[in-house]
Amino acid sequence: MVTFNESIDEVTAFAPATVTNVSCGFDVFGFALHEPGDAVRLRRVRRKGVRIVKIKGTEGLPLQAEKNTAGKALLAFIEALNPSFGFEMEIHKKMAIGTGLGSSAASAAAAVFAANRFLRQPLSPAKLLPFALQGERLTSGESVHADNVAASLYGGFVLIRSVHPLDVIPLHYPRNLVAALIHPRINLTTSQMRRILRTQVNLSDAVRQWGNIAAFVAALQNEDFSLMRRSLNDVIIEPVRGKVIPGYEQAKEAALKNGALGSGISGSGPSIFALCSSQEVAQKAGRAMQSVFERLQIQSDLYISPINARGPKILHITQK
Amino acid sequence: MVTFNESIDEVTAFAPATVTNVSCGFDVFGFALHEPGDAVRLRRVRRKGVRIVKIKGTEGLPLQAEKNTAGKALLAFIEALNPSFGFEMEIHKKMAIGTGLGSSAASAAAAVFAANRFLRQPLSPAKLLPFALQGERLTSGESVHADNVAASLYGGFVLIRSVHPLDVIPLHYPRNLVAALIHPRINLTTSQMRRILRTQVNLSDAVRQWGNIAAFVAALQNEDFSLMRRSLNDVIIEPVRGKVIPGYEQAKEAALKNGALGSGISGSGPSIFALCSSQEVAQKAGRAMQSVFERLQIQSDLYISPINARGPKILHITQK
Repeated sequence: MVTFNESIDEVTAFAPATVTNVSCGFDVFGFALHEPGDAVRLRRVRRKGVRIVKIKGTEGLPLQAEKNTAGKALLAFIEALNPSFGFEMEIHKKMAIGTGLGSSAASAAAAVFAANRFLRQPLSPAKLLPFALQGERLTSGESVHADNVAASLYGGFVLIRSVHPLDVIPLHYPRNLVAALIHPRINLTTSQMRRILRTQVNLSDAVRQWGNIAAFVAALQNEDFSLMRRSLNDVIIEPVRGKVIPGYEQAKEAALKNGALGSGISGSGPSIFALCSSQEVAQKAGRAMQSVFERLQIQSDLYISPINARGPKILHITQK
Repeated sequence: MVTFNESIDEVTAFAPATVTNVSCGFDVFGFALHEPGDAVRLRRVRRKGVRIVKIKGTEGLPLQAEKNTAGKALLAFIEALNPSFGFEMEIHKKMAIGTGLGSSAASAAAAVFAANRFLRQPLSPAKLLPFALQGERLTSGESVHADNVAASLYGGFVLIRSVHPLDVIPLHYPRNLVAALIHPRINLTTSQMRRILRTQVNLSDAVRQWGNIAAFVAALQNEDFSLMRRSLNDVIIEPVRGKVIPGYEQAKEAALKNGALGSGISGSGPSIFALCSSQEVAQKAGRAMQSVFERLQIQSDLYISPINARGPKILHITQK
């Protein structure tokens, strides 16, 4: 039986931003970064339920727990495990919303990961995922995707084989893989980016895509960088979405010219990732991408991060 | 430089039948069997070119080298390597045509594998593949698929990431994987089986398919039988083709009930494979499938074979 540790008063947890889709892996791939990410602080209070007391780092997010992704995720956790107390929640958004880096997923993951620490025997990521997913459901409804939230909670590089039923498979990957992430400050909504996709695709394109994804999984597992280079291609989604992101083609080309193994849209954009075989290449590819947006007079944020094998982490605990 | 071994007079080679598509891997997966397969005997003669002197085991195949898959493959080999002599060829078809087990590919692979043995330094499967593919082109034209011929030449379990350019990736797999193959004696042509496929597919189905293929590659590499079971699913091709093969659904169900990890159509059918975790399970699943066709009063041939890691083999050499 699940029991709570009565001596824990306050927990602060961090959950990382995530890159999903990853070229050939539309809706099924995700990996975690070290930075950016969101932090959630939970304080034990007598009154049951969830009260969001503060949201730092952004504006316009709802304080009502039912309407907030982190709040909703925590409510799902509470409903299942029924603690005898409640939580006050403080959310520290350390990344912008709508970047394509899984901002809402990071908040939901941080909330359930923090809550998990109040248990005597913390639950596995697989057990926590359905709660965090309830938070994601707020932004995407029934067509919820588990890619960001699974990558954030599990860490590493994950494959979401199926959402109904949930089937998340952590993939082996070379430890020296480093991502360069560029976030050009452009407004694109996820729903808009999803709307522009065709619901039908050519069978021949689908075959190319699954040839590539199968090869990419083999490349990850065998640490075959040459095969990664050949298989990090998206013939279905990128041709549509790439056109909507100003500077996309040039940024990708700049990353590849500077040695990246592959480059594509992170999530539904506008952020662009470049996967690289070392920190040095990632720095170079990242700077090259940033120069493209500089020339276009678009402000951008650059992150360089190895794949985060660990996922969320506890930043602080207060015990009685 | 490529030189020929002048002391070799005659070579007989065997190349194996192959299972392609393998549920979630339409047009990109293939694996080799031990039996059945085709044998090709090549004899050195003064007169340049290729003369097919005999075809055993089947009727109606063309003796004209240009029009015969094995002949055409050998002609491509000759054109590239320009030996100072010619070949007399005898083809021993040990498997029926139109079974979905890559009969023409096995003949083409056996021909180039036999010819290869006349070289002082035999070429790699990767180098031989384009020649064998010229033979396959006879039956499928420009839309040629490399899956059967690559699996037959390389042996093992291969992924054909791309045909233009050719990119064949041998995959690791558990050595105890055993296939049960049932060939119900029904006439279905490959072109007919291809014609019934839709050229457009739902994006959501394509996503499910590439989630499964990605998972199946991870399962092969990690020898994860439980994941193989979950991912050996085809939501795109099988629902269409399965309906055309009498008894298909019952045979598949019988295989799964008897412990197979997965079951599907081999190539474009009518043969049906069941992948199993041991010889015993394969025997059981195979007999269960055969019973289904017995009840339907359809004659069938059953083969039980581990995956053939080696591919083609030399059966006989005559030296001066």
